[in-house]
Amino acid sequence: MANVSPNSVTVLREQEHPGTPKALNVAIVGFGTVGSSVARILSERSPSGLRLTHVCNRNIERKRVDWLPSTVRWTEDIDAVLSSECDIFVELIGGLEPAGDWIRRALKSGRSVVTANKQLISRHGNELLRLAAENGQHLAFGASVAGGIPVISGLQEGLAGDELIELCGILNGTCNYILTRIEAAGVSFDEALREAQKLGFAEADPTDDVDGLDARAKLTILARTGLGVSASASDICARSISTIEPVDFEYAKLLDCTIRQLSRARKTSDRLFASVEPALVHSSSPLAAVEGGQNLVVSTGKFGGETVFAGHGAGGNPTAVAVVSDLIAIARSRQHNGATLEETENAALPVSSDFTSRHYLRFTVRDEPGIIAALAKIFCQHGINIDAVFQKPGYSKSKLPFVITLESCSASVVEKALKQIAPLEFQVQPCLNLPILD
Amino acid sequence: MANVSPNSVTVLREQEHPGTPKALNVAIVGFGTVGSSVARILSERSPSGLRLTHVCNRNIERKRVDWLPSTVRWTEDIDAVLSSECDIFVELIGGLEPAGDWIRRALKSGRSVVTANKQLISRHGNELLRLAAENGQHLAFGASVAGGIPVISGLQEGLAGDELIELCGILNGTCNYILTRIEAAGVSFDEALREAQKLGFAEADPTDDVDGLDARAKLTILARTGLGVSASASDICARSISTIEPVDFEYAKLLDCTIRQLSRARKTSDRLFASVEPALVHSSSPLAAVEGGQNLVVSTGKFGGETVFAGHGAGGNPTAVAVVSDLIAIARSRQHNGATLEETENAALPVSSDFTSRHYLRFTVRDEPGIIAALAKIFCQHGINIDAVFQKPGYSKSKLPFVITLESCSASVVEKALKQIAPLEFQVQPCLNLPILD
Repeated sequence: MANVSPNSVTVLREQEHPGTPKALNVAIVGFGTVGSSVARILSERSPSGLRLTHVCNRNIERKRVDWLPSTVRWTEDIDAVLSSECDIFVELIGGLEPAGDWIRRALKSGRSVVTANKQLISRHGNELLRLAAENGQHLAFGASVAGGIPVISGLQEGLAGDELIELCGILNGTCNYILTRIEAAGVSFDEALREAQKLGFAEADPTDDVDGLDARAKLTILARTGLGVSASASDICARSISTIEPVDFEYAKLLDCTIRQLSRARKTSDRLFASVEPALVHSSSPLAAVEGGQNLVVSTGKFGGETVFAGHGAGGNPTAVAVVSDLIAIARSRQHNGATLEETENAALPVSSDFTSRHYLRFTVRDEPGIIAALAKIFCQHGINIDAVFQKPGYSKSKLPFVITLESCSASVVEKALKQIAPLEFQVQPCLNLPILD
Repeated sequence: MANVSPNSVTVLREQEHPGTPKALNVAIVGFGTVGSSVARILSERSPSGLRLTHVCNRNIERKRVDWLPSTVRWTEDIDAVLSSECDIFVELIGGLEPAGDWIRRALKSGRSVVTANKQLISRHGNELLRLAAENGQHLAFGASVAGGIPVISGLQEGLAGDELIELCGILNGTCNYILTRIEAAGVSFDEALREAQKLGFAEADPTDDVDGLDARAKLTILARTGLGVSASASDICARSISTIEPVDFEYAKLLDCTIRQLSRARKTSDRLFASVEPALVHSSSPLAAVEGGQNLVVSTGKFGGETVFAGHGAGGNPTAVAVVSDLIAIARSRQHNGATLEETENAALPVSSDFTSRHYLRFTVRDEPGIIAALAKIFCQHGINIDAVFQKPGYSKSKLPFVITLESCSASVVEKALKQIAPLEFQVQPCLNLPILD
């Protein structure tokens, strides 16, 4: 467990091939939190086949940063972007218009589009997908639902082989934050909302989040992508979480449940059942474990059963990861052979199992005085701090298990101490050593 | 909540376009549990761009089924398959040889390969990926790790925009079954293993599972795909779960933990930390919630933070979903424009929010005799069964909350009853009605 093996391993790196198509030019339109995160990732990671050429925003001088290449063109002029050599138009301004108009113009002029715009994709996704197909372009919207969680690509690609029948998820981090605050602190809805607003988790007008309209837009996108059913958001019943009081969490607990804002869509032969509403979920459900601003989606397939996707549903960096993943997918699809992995370049990197963690040590001994002292002395010699000693009653003195937990230290140091401990004769079987993950 | 909206919505269906390339011919080699599930899904779902043409197995007459088209050719002759018009070679025989030889021959003769073979991809993945790239073919292995959970595609596609630094997961369902049995039933490792063998969850020789060799092969595949680091399985420390006793779960519980077989890989600037071993995980961790034969992977990215993938890690159907998803991905990549979604065909499907579930009703009343009787009478008139009535102490008689739970019934019926209840004057605020998800 403790030895650092010097065996050489290889690091795979993407490399440009002679003969691969030229890099695709990327224009970021909307340089807010997500847009600047996208630029940061493109600049730090330099994914092959992509080159940032334009950043477009109002008051562009106020937005300009010094960490992007000087070749990037900063502009306020959307027409300049749309008539430029840009290959992929990244729309991050949000809202229905002018985003919709700009995306249509980009697609019609032979550019692919990546967007995080849930309202637009919810409302006009079918039309825009058709427009993209007509123009031989991609329209990718992985960032429009659940931010950094790769659920859109999971439904489109990873679960493409299944026939999905139901999707159920926590799609709005603001509601989840408010509900978990009511639950944990016993505060009223109004107070939890004020807290969320103060911390920047809720907007000044929280209607879209609290009344389920935001989640409903995302649910329509999931239903279209995963279930192949296109529904209007306005056809889906959305109920507010504002009626939930602390007493409801007390009663839910009596029922071994908690309360979450759930977005559900289930496809049957003659109907799409769909709703966004607060609901009781059993405490053993993965939905109950979603805390704060996290998101989670459970998909149910006819063949594969339940699959869970969970992670950060919002925030600049997670959402930007989804945008960049879409960009990379487009770049790959334009590469010559489309094979799964690029050819590899090897670099040496040693493999080690010498993780640092707390440790659980279970000794089994013939009880006698001085055991703890003997062990403590050896740990001390190795600079290891004991965290706690536990001994459950009810075991024979001749084969007595007890547990010592160690403060965080490297596995190799613990192994060394245990090697010294191994010969001590009060032990009736070898010590069991497990890491404790924090 | 209860109304069934007749608004027309659209069902998206993939459709063949004039001008799309011909369907790809698929040969399934190995017609066991997974192979026959793959054939079943291809036959039931008919994904566009794919056509099953060959099934190859020893003793093929014993394997022949009557639910596949008569055009499918049944054969024992691998050479016949490798010299046929097959475009995609689906290798499901497992083991290093002859699978490796056949896959090499398939790639060299210009066929793409889909495989669920973890040993082979772990050991020879780099070489085979290079061979695929040299021949302009795909090598897809989404089914080789965690069966139906789309973690390979999630790492390759959905999280491609992130820089992943750590992967941690429960990759072996047999070990997880054994550990959760020791935990739940307090049986010894040997007894839990015998149970698992009797139920078919463990093989006669359980060494590969129990000693972590199976999980280690999967971890090398995840590390290559997600972290871009290629390590030999033999360089990764694997420790057995056979030393875990029931008493360890008791002590783990004292520490608010449980014990799981964890596969971990963490990339640093100069090292790959990697191990497969039993470890204590905190009970609030998603890893602790993995029961029975389920699998779960947590990826940690520099930008997107933690993302969780969970579901059925094994079994014919879930593994077959992963195989078919890989087949669909290859078919899509060969289609002309590679756009995300095919053009759409619309079909009408009404949207309803009339889910059937148990219900939680929280009333807030001025206390007086006869309230329950009045409510029970109305529920009875609507054919609704009361499940339980709860009343927590400590509230004012003038604004008393209490809860009635209803047995499973449709939301619309509950709404109707509540409409009748709304005017009853003992209520000081409207009833809160939430579904209870089971």
